[in-house]
Amino acid sequence: MSERKGYRVAVVGATGAVGQQMIQTLENRDFPVSELLLLSSSRSAGTKVEYKGKEITVQEAKPESFEGVDIALFSAGGSVSKELAPEAVKRGAIVVDNTSAFRMDENTPLVVPEVNEEDLHSHNGIIANPNCSTIQMVVALEPLRKKFGLEKIIVSTYQAVSGAGAAAVEELEEQTQAILNGEEYEPKILPVKSADKHYQIAFNAIPQIDTFVDNGFTYEEMKMINETKKIMHMPGLQVAATCVRLPVGTGHSESVYIEIGQDGVSAAEVKELLADAPGVVLQDDPDQQLYPMPAFCVGKNDVFVGRIRKDIDNDKGFHMWVVSDNLLKGAAWNSVQIAESLVKLGLVK
Amino acid sequence: MSERKGYRVAVVGATGAVGQQMIQTLENRDFPVSELLLLSSSRSAGTKVEYKGKEITVQEAKPESFEGVDIALFSAGGSVSKELAPEAVKRGAIVVDNTSAFRMDENTPLVVPEVNEEDLHSHNGIIANPNCSTIQMVVALEPLRKKFGLEKIIVSTYQAVSGAGAAAVEELEEQTQAILNGEEYEPKILPVKSADKHYQIAFNAIPQIDTFVDNGFTYEEMKMINETKKIMHMPGLQVAATCVRLPVGTGHSESVYIEIGQDGVSAAEVKELLADAPGVVLQDDPDQQLYPMPAFCVGKNDVFVGRIRKDIDNDKGFHMWVVSDNLLKGAAWNSVQIAESLVKLGLVK
Repeated sequence: MSERKGYRVAVVGATGAVGQQMIQTLENRDFPVSELLLLSSSRSAGTKVEYKGKEITVQEAKPESFEGVDIALFSAGGSVSKELAPEAVKRGAIVVDNTSAFRMDENTPLVVPEVNEEDLHSHNGIIANPNCSTIQMVVALEPLRKKFGLEKIIVSTYQAVSGAGAAAVEELEEQTQAILNGEEYEPKILPVKSADKHYQIAFNAIPQIDTFVDNGFTYEEMKMINETKKIMHMPGLQVAATCVRLPVGTGHSESVYIEIGQDGVSAAEVKELLADAPGVVLQDDPDQQLYPMPAFCVGKNDVFVGRIRKDIDNDKGFHMWVVSDNLLKGAAWNSVQIAESLVKLGLVK
Repeated sequence: MSERKGYRVAVVGATGAVGQQMIQTLENRDFPVSELLLLSSSRSAGTKVEYKGKEITVQEAKPESFEGVDIALFSAGGSVSKELAPEAVKRGAIVVDNTSAFRMDENTPLVVPEVNEEDLHSHNGIIANPNCSTIQMVVALEPLRKKFGLEKIIVSTYQAVSGAGAAAVEELEEQTQAILNGEEYEPKILPVKSADKHYQIAFNAIPQIDTFVDNGFTYEEMKMINETKKIMHMPGLQVAATCVRLPVGTGHSESVYIEIGQDGVSAAEVKELLADAPGVVLQDDPDQQLYPMPAFCVGKNDVFVGRIRKDIDNDKGFHMWVVSDNLLKGAAWNSVQIAESLVKLGLVK
């Protein structure tokens, strides 16, 4: 492995919000790329994208595109992944897939490197990248789980519109301007583009992300519940989520309540542990009004944690506020980080 | 009582965001007012305010202003209430106080009519109106407490800027426009006007409302905790809160998790109960994407409840989403409603 100068990397969905961040992150991290192949739907093929000062023309993604590819980062929607990821694997590539297509497949590891990097060893060609809101939460909670045990999570999210794609960001901006001008603006994208009804997001909060499941939870909420259990290898962990979309461009926030497995732990001990945790930046000083906020996390790879408090009634209970850039640690950076781990562990052929 | 044609009503803080809503609500409810006295600081005195088509000149609030007043609605800040509410009582008025000055005073009832109207009987001249975020939560939870018992509440709030006054609404609008224009804008009001640091609220979420207490919670969070226990007469109730300010003009939302005192209750039973609950409008139909949202609650007196789900792990656990106009049920309407209850119960001399 150490002889390799670089890898042939493909980005599928290269023109999307996450795809663009993937390309930027590969460049920022100076990932050992010998050749970068940018793929998309036929509609976006032909677009030119800059990588390390050179223009690369985006090509239509086809099964044959993956001949000779070492690592393929997918972020072009679940149906594209279902069709093309197995084709890429068949041709010898390792796929890191940022859609929900394979996340709960029992033969596919679902990986956040700070939490379960070792699961990469059991891959069968595809590694799934978890949902954005799940990733930042498990990065913050893993150090606590390891040291004190973890029994219960109740999370309420404050999610940015970029999680619904570039069109949702545009909708937020145009709609906000229209409302400030006192003009009408017909919502067309949020909360779910394909849904029957669309609602105003500007100066509003929409308690729906993704569509509904029979139990009254949304798919987004069930993703947080099921993916957290899988990543932490804790099928018995109690997890509940309420997911809400806010008029924020980028940066997901989460109000997280947990019950750990140990009595007598102080908030100070939790803070101390998180101050040294991988991928975490502790921002917690009420006297200095220091706490994480989405507007100040954009463009950063870290998960920011603050407002850490011990529950008043439950000795095992703690509250915290967790913020991260949903396009980076929530998507592009976690995918590239998985690729870095694969290289480090010698798992790329 | 039934012979009285009307009451001499004073509104203290008549030019503020809540004071304005109080005057409007007295008019909308056709409250039996024989004379309306509008009071304010010396700074705002002289302002003219319309009530039932007539202009009333706002006067400076002084102890003597309350001579002959039957009911005084206060919403001019805690220090004004501390100074002038006892003066009004001394002169025979009943005070409904919308500040935090007397809320936790053990001789002062803290009242939400749908929950503890009977506490009005024990008043000593002053009745406290609870914090906005507390009111809408207890209206939604009281029917459940009565029928099934209530053991635990964990709430995360999504609060509008109008809770911080008219200047905060202006800041949100001007700052949003500046950001859309790519211009600089120095925050001066939020999260707390008197605090050292001010942060951008546009396209952001600020996990601080009011200042911090030693235990790491904010005063706003402690208000929700302590006031809920007092209103429900449940000193042993477990309550925890995380309060967050959003770029929303008016309308507070809350993600509420509760544990009731009974096993085997279904989400359908909870919905059925809330569909008939006083002050509550049930908006809960995932198939129709029906759930409450702050943008659609403005100007309405009700508390809107939806997204009701049974917890997946805990048979006593339920999740819900509670939305209300923070200036109305959260402040002005609850105050006027208390005045209506006082009249109904024959408690106004």
